[in-house]
Amino acid sequence: MTVSIIVIGDELLIGQVTDTNSGWIARHIAPYGWEVNDVQTVSDKADDIRRAIDRAFERSRVVLTTGGLGPTKDDITKAVLRDYFGGEMITDPAVTENIHAIFNRRGIKMNPLTEAQAVVPSSCRVIQNRVGTAPIMWFERTDGRVLVSMPGVPFETSTMMEEAVFPALRERFPSDVHIEHAVLMVTDYTESALAMKIADWEEALPDYLHLAYLPKPGLIRLRLDGHHADATFIKEEVRREIAALKAILGPAVLADSDLTPAEILLKECRERGLTVATAESCTGGNIAHELTLIPGASDVVNGGVVSYSNKVKSDVLGVKMEDIESYGAVSIPVVRQMAEGAQRVTSSDVAVATSGIAGPGGGTAEKPVGTVCICARYGDRELYETARFNGSRERIINSATTRALILAAKLIREEI
Amino acid sequence: MTVSIIVIGDELLIGQVTDTNSGWIARHIAPYGWEVNDVQTVSDKADDIRRAIDRAFERSRVVLTTGGLGPTKDDITKAVLRDYFGGEMITDPAVTENIHAIFNRRGIKMNPLTEAQAVVPSSCRVIQNRVGTAPIMWFERTDGRVLVSMPGVPFETSTMMEEAVFPALRERFPSDVHIEHAVLMVTDYTESALAMKIADWEEALPDYLHLAYLPKPGLIRLRLDGHHADATFIKEEVRREIAALKAILGPAVLADSDLTPAEILLKECRERGLTVATAESCTGGNIAHELTLIPGASDVVNGGVVSYSNKVKSDVLGVKMEDIESYGAVSIPVVRQMAEGAQRVTSSDVAVATSGIAGPGGGTAEKPVGTVCICARYGDRELYETARFNGSRERIINSATTRALILAAKLIREEI
Repeated sequence: MTVSIIVIGDELLIGQVTDTNSGWIARHIAPYGWEVNDVQTVSDKADDIRRAIDRAFERSRVVLTTGGLGPTKDDITKAVLRDYFGGEMITDPAVTENIHAIFNRRGIKMNPLTEAQAVVPSSCRVIQNRVGTAPIMWFERTDGRVLVSMPGVPFETSTMMEEAVFPALRERFPSDVHIEHAVLMVTDYTESALAMKIADWEEALPDYLHLAYLPKPGLIRLRLDGHHADATFIKEEVRREIAALKAILGPAVLADSDLTPAEILLKECRERGLTVATAESCTGGNIAHELTLIPGASDVVNGGVVSYSNKVKSDVLGVKMEDIESYGAVSIPVVRQMAEGAQRVTSSDVAVATSGIAGPGGGTAEKPVGTVCICARYGDRELYETARFNGSRERIINSATTRALILAAKLIREEI
Repeated sequence: MTVSIIVIGDELLIGQVTDTNSGWIARHIAPYGWEVNDVQTVSDKADDIRRAIDRAFERSRVVLTTGGLGPTKDDITKAVLRDYFGGEMITDPAVTENIHAIFNRRGIKMNPLTEAQAVVPSSCRVIQNRVGTAPIMWFERTDGRVLVSMPGVPFETSTMMEEAVFPALRERFPSDVHIEHAVLMVTDYTESALAMKIADWEEALPDYLHLAYLPKPGLIRLRLDGHHADATFIKEEVRREIAALKAILGPAVLADSDLTPAEILLKECRERGLTVATAESCTGGNIAHELTLIPGASDVVNGGVVSYSNKVKSDVLGVKMEDIESYGAVSIPVVRQMAEGAQRVTSSDVAVATSGIAGPGGGTAEKPVGTVCICARYGDRELYETARFNGSRERIINSATTRALILAAKLIREEI
């Protein structure tokens, strides 16, 4: 079963917003054995939307559209769908009621533009949008192909797909192919070095298994996908091949499930009952942010200090001002004291600290932009290094964050 | 002049990675008066890539592709381009040299998979990739239409587009339409309430001006785009209409350029020579992260404390434990003491503090998930509120971050 996605909105084609809906949908339909054929991103122009629908139906039995349904006048998707599937515009009283309920809950006053969202083509079946005002519309062609139009707001799309759209699609299109996948998070290799290392294994994979590489800073995600009519068989095949791959890669495998570096660190800490703290200069709070994005982080994360200025490094974390002066703020002695300070002031078992030059300014010949000192500390044990990252300020911050989290996870593990 | 973009890679269709290249390209070609017609995201299958190229050339004179060029075996774009544009595969010695130079710089050993990246179709002109190993390939059809194949790594694509691909395209396709745009960042309105408020003004806009809404949590970005052959005329028209719009919206306009809430706060602080600090519980470092993502943040941001546990709130920020016990950690008295504490321990003029329930657990009837207490403090003056946000944990964290930054910017401005 294949699906085509159409993402609608001028704001996407001028780069004002980034589409995350299609990726979300792809990740969440995979477990049903479904695949996304293609994603088309088109403007709010009627012709473009119509053409995209035609192309999508050429390839797929199910077309999912997101966006183009806002109350403001640049959204015309609904009119295009009425022309495409026939019928006339009618006001759906259940949608009106839903809009009123949502506005009441949010304590906002209704207005005519919002009222107009209850007008839908008579050719569609409405799926109530529990978390927003734009209704979800299910259209069916005479040949049985289905188009579901959903709002563009990622939170609304993901919530309603999970609650209503997926269940309706599964009922309409029962699946007969079983898919199975497994993931390894691998560190210490570049993408091509890893490909070389596992070339023989990969070469020998049968047709129904496929390996994909996703390199991230400091980490490569390997995903093995299997498709087969026999559920038990494909499950066993994936399990067997992943075990073989783990044996080849040894300790370079940081996790055997789809975890971010922050999730890996949190898991390692939680399993041992450890608490963690951060002391961040160049990463500016991003390590703490990555950790606390994870539900239940409060069991493990005590907190941290963003010590951007030298005064805060000294006043709050107790880094010796003379060391900052003699070695520089971006130095191993300073980052070690930052980790120790964070551990102390937050009463935590583990601390991770960064100090670096994220750029674009501030680089020197000796310490160019991208230089980051990192220290992970657990009890009295430490792992520290001076790394050099490439790219934009954001990329350097992200790379340093990832590396710091990996270093801490490795340090905790070493004990075993 | 219109452009079509093709984003290639299985990893995109299974939602493993999110395409940011197309948005980046769209934002950066707009100043040249160029527009993105559509974006197609396709798999690494030869048929899909070929079909996408055909479709793209139907609509656009320039087709830009990203991705599908990695050294691993799931990337076949190069072979498809050779079949499409003709020629044979040849090794380009300049590319080989470039790959060697990059590997030497990174201190990594070459391997045959990487060497193979120097093999390109003889029908293309190679643009050297200064920051990566996959070469950029410029193809031209006999009808003058152009396809440029670029790598998928966002950092490589953006760097090389700016340095080499844009200049080459501008030389090949000189532009005759002038575009001009202006942006207002508006707070205190929902999207539909804002649309109502400015309906008369928007209705009266001439054909060559177009308004687009981008709602974000706590903020709506209005973008007015103008296209015209006469550069002076369109510039004046956009200026005049934006002035009219600002007059209608008054103090709800938080900024008249394309700034994030963090950039707005940083600008307000910098203009007044103020320093800023954060005290974050539920936002977990995200406010500090948003502020320090901005180049030059260190002039303004002293640092902050992520006081996730109550002990850190008390030990580091000096929040009274008895207040945490009687009012709860998510309360106005606690968040006010957090702001004061951050101001004091970091010696900053301005502080912003958050404490809330980001979910999914931890909610109560009185303080459901999404409840966030926020306090901005400048000298002895304060602005505080208890907000209630909707959505996922990430969305609540982002909403609280935005609102806290806006509150601080408003507080600083009130003084004027």
